[in-house]
Amino acid sequence: MTNQIDPASTLSGVSTITPQQYGVGARFTLAVYDSRYAEIIVGALERADASGLTVDTDDISTFIGGTEQRILEYLRDVIAFAADSGAHVSASILLSRGCPGELQCELPQGVAALGAEPVSLKPATVRARAHWSLYPLLDGGATIDHMSPIYEAIEQARADGIYSGSDHFATRLDGDLAGVLTTAANAWIAVGHKVQHVTTHLSVSMNSPSLMSD
Amino acid sequence: MTNQIDPASTLSGVSTITPQQYGVGARFTLAVYDSRYAEIIVGALERADASGLTVDTDDISTFIGGTEQRILEYLRDVIAFAADSGAHVSASILLSRGCPGELQCELPQGVAALGAEPVSLKPATVRARAHWSLYPLLDGGATIDHMSPIYEAIEQARADGIYSGSDHFATRLDGDLAGVLTTAANAWIAVGHKVQHVTTHLSVSMNSPSLMSD
Repeated sequence: MTNQIDPASTLSGVSTITPQQYGVGARFTLAVYDSRYAEIIVGALERADASGLTVDTDDISTFIGGTEQRILEYLRDVIAFAADSGAHVSASILLSRGCPGELQCELPQGVAALGAEPVSLKPATVRARAHWSLYPLLDGGATIDHMSPIYEAIEQARADGIYSGSDHFATRLDGDLAGVLTTAANAWIAVGHKVQHVTTHLSVSMNSPSLMSD
Repeated sequence: MTNQIDPASTLSGVSTITPQQYGVGARFTLAVYDSRYAEIIVGALERADASGLTVDTDDISTFIGGTEQRILEYLRDVIAFAADSGAHVSASILLSRGCPGELQCELPQGVAALGAEPVSLKPATVRARAHWSLYPLLDGGATIDHMSPIYEAIEQARADGIYSGSDHFATRLDGDLAGVLTTAANAWIAVGHKVQHVTTHLSVSMNSPSLMSD
């Protein structure tokens, strides 16, 4: 296991933790509804710039480790390149922070929450619709409830012009793929200033033939 | 908005709440990596028995409301029927409990946690591999930390023979599709006995050509 962190130094010296040591990362599954899916997925992964990132693709999903800005740029590019094929494409995306490691968190509970600058993404020029959920993972000593940051994030999505409605268990987002990703990522980062372990899940759809015109 | 619950009666009479009033439900996106995806997805949805369930498919995902047992039977059937086509299939699944409604939880924070009997599923006779995450969504007054129930769930997955390793942000499950779904659902139900709002996400893959033989 790499990146093992000494809890004592962590608690006293948060500023020395890198995003990867803090567990900033993503996991995503790219689905292409087309018999040419293998060449489209491999092509999109090869075409995207992975510099500065740890990228590891297995049979279920792809892990990305790095800074928030670079992770989101990479997600935008891989997904947009796949959508460029014209095929119906969906992506299931998980962003996580504050709980690095695999079987167990390598950071102890109660580390000072580590936020980040908001990400800023150039448009992808492909329309995306998404179902989005945000999870502040509090512990017993927390001084806030878990729904308040979620309601704040939904208000921000409205302000961004990306909010498109609420369905059971998920908020509906609609806009340029970059805008959809930016809204979800910046909510995740904002909650990350107050809560150590925060995850967010997005199910994004592009080029859907069942997309109602509106 | 239907199923609005009077908080006062909720707090004093939990036994009168139906699973749907408690927000027991699922949302899933079924992806078929084949140009015949539309007929395969529509066929699987039509073939599965939705009796006793509320099922609502939109352009991004499908909502299922009902009892835990019926929801999981339906998920097993729809996904297995799609995999029967022989195409590479993946499914992104969200199970949620304790927070009904759309934009806002219709149950107040602090309602007595409502568990359920474990689900029991007949084998689907299709092998599935999954990345799985479990989220106990605690509030400030909680007396437990959020990672303990997750570690307990991973131990149970080992006991079930479904655990296949841990990757960043997710536990790897491997087995018959029914076993994978049962392990995830019963962990979600078990945590639901102690925590009101619990969600779990699964990214499941079947018929993957990149599946390494083992």
